[in-house]
Amino acid sequence: MTKGALALLINSNAQNWSPERWKARFDAVCGDRLVTLLPNAGLDPASVHYAAVWKPVPGTLAGFPNLRAIFNLGAGVDALMADRTLPDVPLVRVAVPDLTGRMTEYVVLHVLMHHRQELYLRQSQRDKIWEPTYQWPASAVTVGIMGLGTLGIDAAGALKRIGFRVVGWSRSARTVDGVECLHGDAGLDAFLGQSDILVCLLPLTPETHGILNRGVFAKLNRNGPLGAPVLINAGRGGLQNEADILTCLDDGTLGAASLDVFVQEPLPADSRFWSHPKVVLTPHNAADTDADEISKYVAAQIACFEAGSALENVVDRARGY
Amino acid sequence: MTKGALALLINSNAQNWSPERWKARFDAVCGDRLVTLLPNAGLDPASVHYAAVWKPVPGTLAGFPNLRAIFNLGAGVDALMADRTLPDVPLVRVAVPDLTGRMTEYVVLHVLMHHRQELYLRQSQRDKIWEPTYQWPASAVTVGIMGLGTLGIDAAGALKRIGFRVVGWSRSARTVDGVECLHGDAGLDAFLGQSDILVCLLPLTPETHGILNRGVFAKLNRNGPLGAPVLINAGRGGLQNEADILTCLDDGTLGAASLDVFVQEPLPADSRFWSHPKVVLTPHNAADTDADEISKYVAAQIACFEAGSALENVVDRARGY
Repeated sequence: MTKGALALLINSNAQNWSPERWKARFDAVCGDRLVTLLPNAGLDPASVHYAAVWKPVPGTLAGFPNLRAIFNLGAGVDALMADRTLPDVPLVRVAVPDLTGRMTEYVVLHVLMHHRQELYLRQSQRDKIWEPTYQWPASAVTVGIMGLGTLGIDAAGALKRIGFRVVGWSRSARTVDGVECLHGDAGLDAFLGQSDILVCLLPLTPETHGILNRGVFAKLNRNGPLGAPVLINAGRGGLQNEADILTCLDDGTLGAASLDVFVQEPLPADSRFWSHPKVVLTPHNAADTDADEISKYVAAQIACFEAGSALENVVDRARGY
Repeated sequence: MTKGALALLINSNAQNWSPERWKARFDAVCGDRLVTLLPNAGLDPASVHYAAVWKPVPGTLAGFPNLRAIFNLGAGVDALMADRTLPDVPLVRVAVPDLTGRMTEYVVLHVLMHHRQELYLRQSQRDKIWEPTYQWPASAVTVGIMGLGTLGIDAAGALKRIGFRVVGWSRSARTVDGVECLHGDAGLDAFLGQSDILVCLLPLTPETHGILNRGVFAKLNRNGPLGAPVLINAGRGGLQNEADILTCLDDGTLGAASLDVFVQEPLPADSRFWSHPKVVLTPHNAADTDADEISKYVAAQIACFEAGSALENVVDRARGY
């Protein structure tokens, strides 16, 4: 029996995604299964059993009647969840150690940059000023992590190893070793009130859209060693109210922000974020997806699935992540 | 019996060292022992049993005939070892978790900054350019740590937690869990040849003076993901040949450098380091000494010593650290 094909749909607007490179990686790990890049006019849609996708044009996946599972080639499935015509088959998001580790690198780097006063120190270097100011130890700083999935839990562990106190917040109750975990609307204020540095790793859903707003920033701890609290968003641009971030940076409600994601990407040239002295901006590269690691992960999941096992990391469509 | 006095000698040129603040902290932890700041004209030199010092003027300590131990209020004793008149009593350097943790913060921050291409990303932000380049994972990068004392071992552990491969080098053989350790002249080239990022935490002794020079930089790994290797020196300025660093940054032997220490501090205004685009400069604040933690450490050591126990972290004068 011929194995069902794996169709690859990579949005042509996605920067740094080479569809050919992804196809080569999948070819290397899929044995005799046909791997095809879409669009492919000669392909029989009925032959496609699996799709591996990144931000496909809405409606595209509805054209495959025998689809068994969809694999999202990244951690966030918000782009797919916006497709009302998405076939009702298991939707799997990647959770590979490689991607988790990259996100932890980003989080630890940006927490340390703000903790260690890098904005001040770089300005001092430019001004040729040798004036070390008081530096509090990591143990005096509380990092609040919004989102306690695979990424949030790993970042929390690395931050604790360096000495930070870590608190966490999630939609539903979670338990993380050594982390005070709060959840839901009832736990949000107590979480924010302890946080000197807020790290957002939430999935983007209708409930979390715009959650990073003035009301939340105003509840962060203002009595910590950093003075004004710091925002780090490595989730999705849709989580943040960008006008509120700018206003709060200007009026001192926020002391600084590291932003990897934006409502519109690439960030428009006229955005004030580019030149704001309190903003550390990265071009949505906090956690690149590695074609080698992810193609292996998808191939292994398909093999298990065809052997009768359950798929891992299946999205709960009611929750949206 | 009256307890012997503790004399505090804080060099008046040391920036950010408030002698009064140190005296207040020692008063708080020394019970009924006299704590006195020098100079103190009314003090009987014979009454002084202990000295806690930071870069005292050479010769000063020779004036106390009943001195039992000297406590250095920082990790590096190179300034004291240069005093040929130093009394032959145990010389103790501080090794408190607070100072170790601060140094690990600095090392992890600067390793991550270079690993994550921060120099490029900050320039891109200034130029309003959204161009993420390929980002390798930490597992593809080897950090070489020179100096496997308390500081080096702790930094190695934190870097490994984030995913870096770590190799270590020390004067004499050491064993560190999960770290390939090399030592001595015989092990130096093999150590350097593996290192993409070189972190120097060596003590400054006649043997290590100027060890960070062109000959060493030229042996670092040039085939790693970063291309040109990176130097991070948080030890002492005397470890580095500053002319060699500038030449090697200019000709590409080094890709970048993070420097916390300099031959002359504060760094002179005309130093090229201030404005060099490949240099990340900090004003010798990698690991501040915390008066609270260190006064407690010294008081506890004195109490143990007077109860008949051996002092910890006594400097080997033949080695110089």
